[in-house]
Amino acid sequence: MGGQEELRIRPATERDRAAILAIIMPVIRAGETYTLPRSMAEDDAVAYWTGPDRKSFVAEDGTGRILGTYYLRANQAGGGAHVCNCGYMTAAEAGGRGVARAMCADSLSRAREAGFHAMQFNFVVSTNLRAVRLWEGMGFDILGRLPRAFRHPAHGYVDALVMFKTL
Amino acid sequence: MGGQEELRIRPATERDRAAILAIIMPVIRAGETYTLPRSMAEDDAVAYWTGPDRKSFVAEDGTGRILGTYYLRANQAGGGAHVCNCGYMTAAEAGGRGVARAMCADSLSRAREAGFHAMQFNFVVSTNLRAVRLWEGMGFDILGRLPRAFRHPAHGYVDALVMFKTL
Repeated sequence: MGGQEELRIRPATERDRAAILAIIMPVIRAGETYTLPRSMAEDDAVAYWTGPDRKSFVAEDGTGRILGTYYLRANQAGGGAHVCNCGYMTAAEAGGRGVARAMCADSLSRAREAGFHAMQFNFVVSTNLRAVRLWEGMGFDILGRLPRAFRHPAHGYVDALVMFKTL
Repeated sequence: MGGQEELRIRPATERDRAAILAIIMPVIRAGETYTLPRSMAEDDAVAYWTGPDRKSFVAEDGTGRILGTYYLRANQAGGGAHVCNCGYMTAAEAGGRGVARAMCADSLSRAREAGFHAMQFNFVVSTNLRAVRLWEGMGFDILGRLPRAFRHPAHGYVDALVMFKTL
């Protein structure tokens, strides 16, 4: 077990493409937590995760192995551009090691530095209890519950949560 | 005063470009209700309003004058694609004539026909009282209030509302 203290979180580069794909494709294919098409092509997935409207990061352990990745972007344009949004994904084999928590803490810090006033998660699948509890533990409030807004491949129609934290 | 009974709502075509621009550009430039950049170029605005991820419509009166326009799209991809989203804009000179109400009713009907289960408005600016009351009157619930999530050009930071209606 590496602790999260050994994680280094840095901006993603072109050379991280394979490592990012290895993390995000299983999550997309599973279709249990993100509103992305399960059949999404790898190129489209990378284009989404590292698009020009966001900054993308990777979390690597002491040996340089990438255990997680996240993006940070403005959640809206115009009059809503002072609220940011993030998406986080952790490598399946790295679950339970504090990677998501470390990435979220890093994103909150970078969001504050960038001048954002708040962070919003638009669509946290309610059955993703680990995520919901983690975000609540990091100070996010559930501001809204979208009834049956997500079709879970195993559980059918389940609620999604809007979560928000003022920075 | 034409009543809303005289409105015809139909899919937008290329020939409606000028009429759509005449409606949406003043709303975008005002920056009071939509999270779009106030400086958005006309081409970008039309590309947004009539993009390939949505269907766009216009409301015209008995003389063929276009009084409003709206779009209908899936609000999310993947497991969220059964919830739709709409945006509506009414010509400044046509306010108070039921155009927005007629467009919303039309969109709800088309959304049901298309198989959507619900309609979600992600970001209704709380100071847009006419809209909030109209959507509430049409059966939308306020599911969440995003604190100070919109920077209004006159009122400063104001709340935005997440509104939702099961179809």
